[in-house]
Amino acid sequence: MHFTKQQINELEQRFRAHLINSLSGFKSANLIGTQDKLGNTNLAIVSSVFHLGAHPPLVGMIMRPHSVPRHTFENILETGVYTINQVNSEIVEQAHQTSARYDKDESEFAATGLTTEYLADFNAPFVAQSRLKYAVQLVEHQHLAINGTELVIGEIIDLHIDDNAVQEDGFIDLASIDTVAVSGLDSYHTTQAIARLPYAKKTP
Amino acid sequence: MHFTKQQINELEQRFRAHLINSLSGFKSANLIGTQDKLGNTNLAIVSSVFHLGAHPPLVGMIMRPHSVPRHTFENILETGVYTINQVNSEIVEQAHQTSARYDKDESEFAATGLTTEYLADFNAPFVAQSRLKYAVQLVEHQHLAINGTELVIGEIIDLHIDDNAVQEDGFIDLASIDTVAVSGLDSYHTTQAIARLPYAKKTP
Repeated sequence: MHFTKQQINELEQRFRAHLINSLSGFKSANLIGTQDKLGNTNLAIVSSVFHLGAHPPLVGMIMRPHSVPRHTFENILETGVYTINQVNSEIVEQAHQTSARYDKDESEFAATGLTTEYLADFNAPFVAQSRLKYAVQLVEHQHLAINGTELVIGEIIDLHIDDNAVQEDGFIDLASIDTVAVSGLDSYHTTQAIARLPYAKKTP
Repeated sequence: MHFTKQQINELEQRFRAHLINSLSGFKSANLIGTQDKLGNTNLAIVSSVFHLGAHPPLVGMIMRPHSVPRHTFENILETGVYTINQVNSEIVEQAHQTSARYDKDESEFAATGLTTEYLADFNAPFVAQSRLKYAVQLVEHQHLAINGTELVIGEIIDLHIDDNAVQEDGFIDLASIDTVAVSGLDSYHTTQAIARLPYAKKTP
């Protein structure tokens, strides 16, 4: 199948959203935990978290300020901190449900049955049911004028992982902790490892 | 397991790279096809391609200018165009091999056995073996001073997908075309769908 630029532009809006959201490939599934200054908690599923660098350890994500995660973005600006919690196959439905339009004074934790957990005196809630989660400190955010999204960059400052998931060389076996991948807007996937491949070198 | 900020900073460099690269979750696996003004082709595997918006259809990626994909970035600046080609399980090894340090006058296509394909008069090479690929026009790039990476934003202008992969509502079944996911620096995965979940609404 072939879609030209003009055909893409003329697609029905929801069809185009499903189609274009599938193009980047598999996406990460993470829950962003925040709270406002009064301690009202918020939890939002985000599929745009991406690795930005290992030294310093940086993580990026894209937020749409006018969509559901706007409370998340507001809380991050207010407190400067957030948690990132990988979604595993046991909590896919609750995680997805956080994308419903709850008011700011309704916590998605209470609404979905996920449990807040406070670790190492960090001022944002973790998800108890997540098996890989970390504390993040806001470093900067950039408004992307092209479509009104915000690029949010944070430093990873504290890391909590299920025992046995970290291998000898630092690699974390995400399949062993049932971390899921997302495709499109609404499809969740478990994974099966094909292989870890050696560092690539030119063949003589 | 618990790693504090100080412990993360003190990790051996390679261990930290593996660990931190695993934190964002599953990543997309894409081959970026480019050529310079003379027509010398280049191909680089990138795990940082992410969805940025559906209308206009935008895709972002993070490039490390001092790493292997610097030729890719140079070519994108020179020609203003590139292709994004999803990696499937049949070409994982060739795709990974593009990350070796080839000189600029050596094409990763020739070196890995992947085949150039030119579609719809677009001035950058596609990967013939890829089953979902699209032409991208550079919109903007932003230097991220925090760690010297470049955020590259492009508009999707022409789209080629295997027949039958696009479902009635626009969703593309990536598992049906064997698209793989990446974790960490070097692990490749096939996927199995758990479910597509309905648009989330507040329960009364």
